[in-house]
Amino acid sequence: MQRINIQNITEKHYIMNTETLYQNIKSKGSFLCVGLDTDLSKIPPFLLKHEDPAFEFNKRIIDATHKYAVAYKPNLAFYESMGLKGWRSLEKTVEYIRLNYPGIFLIADAKRGDIGNTSKMYAKTFFEIMDFDAVTVAPYMGEDSVTPFLSYSGKYVILLALTSNKGAEDFQYAFDCKAQMCLFEKVIKKSKEWGSPENMMYVVGATQANMLLRVRNIIPNHFLLVPGIGAQGGSLNDVVVNGMNEKCGLLVNSSREILYASQHEDFDTASADKALEVKEAMKKYL
Amino acid sequence: MQRINIQNITEKHYIMNTETLYQNIKSKGSFLCVGLDTDLSKIPPFLLKHEDPAFEFNKRIIDATHKYAVAYKPNLAFYESMGLKGWRSLEKTVEYIRLNYPGIFLIADAKRGDIGNTSKMYAKTFFEIMDFDAVTVAPYMGEDSVTPFLSYSGKYVILLALTSNKGAEDFQYAFDCKAQMCLFEKVIKKSKEWGSPENMMYVVGATQANMLLRVRNIIPNHFLLVPGIGAQGGSLNDVVVNGMNEKCGLLVNSSREILYASQHEDFDTASADKALEVKEAMKKYL
Repeated sequence: MQRINIQNITEKHYIMNTETLYQNIKSKGSFLCVGLDTDLSKIPPFLLKHEDPAFEFNKRIIDATHKYAVAYKPNLAFYESMGLKGWRSLEKTVEYIRLNYPGIFLIADAKRGDIGNTSKMYAKTFFEIMDFDAVTVAPYMGEDSVTPFLSYSGKYVILLALTSNKGAEDFQYAFDCKAQMCLFEKVIKKSKEWGSPENMMYVVGATQANMLLRVRNIIPNHFLLVPGIGAQGGSLNDVVVNGMNEKCGLLVNSSREILYASQHEDFDTASADKALEVKEAMKKYL
Repeated sequence: MQRINIQNITEKHYIMNTETLYQNIKSKGSFLCVGLDTDLSKIPPFLLKHEDPAFEFNKRIIDATHKYAVAYKPNLAFYESMGLKGWRSLEKTVEYIRLNYPGIFLIADAKRGDIGNTSKMYAKTFFEIMDFDAVTVAPYMGEDSVTPFLSYSGKYVILLALTSNKGAEDFQYAFDCKAQMCLFEKVIKKSKEWGSPENMMYVVGATQANMLLRVRNIIPNHFLLVPGIGAQGGSLNDVVVNGMNEKCGLLVNSSREILYASQHEDFDTASADKALEVKEAMKKYL
């Protein structure tokens, strides 16, 4: 882990290259990403008396699970829906992780993307205003909507390729006559020219594990962020068998199963138990 | 214009149906949407001494241009990139418009979209936490990423179909073998089944005006939000000739040309002059 300046920002930001990420995965025996989809209607009710219940919840979840996870992934929707307070909870969560657990890979699950000069502002938000390592980006608007995020050295775009939801079937499998491949394959094939495995990763849902071989045919070396294990029905074994590469190449996300394992005072212990269970399952494959 | 309850929210929210929107367009002689892409590095420098320069700028732009515009469209990227302060400036802008100019159609240009239960949180953000009429949504994740926004009566999804940037060529024109049409057409054809002209609109860039006829073949009655006039090179005449329907059916956006018409003390007068000029050009077609 090094700390260097990016662009002309004077503060120090963390830089994590994929080799360091792989070393962290090996030393922890885990490629678990915990999705911080913090929802005030789902957290243990006793936390609501705190001034900032979302942050208090995150802090306890992170303290309890950080040994078993290499990455955290707050989904922006949950924080935005709490208004200004939610945005502040998110900022505090990022700062808390940076201060206390510097080896963690930090993903803003924001699914942003706009015309070039606007995407630049989103990149500023997640890489300068907040010190995330990576941000999820939607590919629909093409190259100039993605490249502004790639101009930050040591930061990553995680581009949506094949998502874990039912709606993935609507457009992502559209078969392109000219390219002779599905849209999600075209997205990967085209976009991999815009960056490298050192600044791009891809979202491929665990519910689409049978497609991972086709994804690996196009991008053998990129890291994949894999949501959809657990509540959404994906299998860890299928993901590993079809998607793992020599340097692991996988960050497998779990959100609800870990976050909401218990509603009691010791909810964080229950979350840690659940994360440990996932980590133990992962360790066998490393 | 009526005020009714939506879902189980107790506060009152504005509802604007497309007939009311059309009446507003006719009475103002304008289908102009002003894009509030407020960038502190581009606003007149003397405003920076204010406590909330972004809001101060917006307020003066809105006061000066509201006679010539039927809609305002803050792009979220610009506000998020200012951190917490930016989020507050946005909230104040929405409140200011609601309080002072109740006939205005208010669009959150956010280009959101996520799995169902997450899109629901984004819908809450823009339709409950803030009282927007519409939010732009990216289609890549399909039906369940869009429908949560449609469950609010009197609120609109504006789905990206064909965008105004160069990257639109990368994937939006991919020709689908089975459907025998381009991806943007497939997006429109499939998604129009999810809602109606009373809760869905589409983004079609002015730089793609020759495609508007093909869009109108699929959706003759839906409103289209058309960015890309001016700085991005699109022509108003081409847009009108190919895209206007019996009830106008167009909201044409202009951002930079209007916002940054002058850097002087009377910048708002310059913006008003520019907006009036666009409105006069539009009036001829109504």
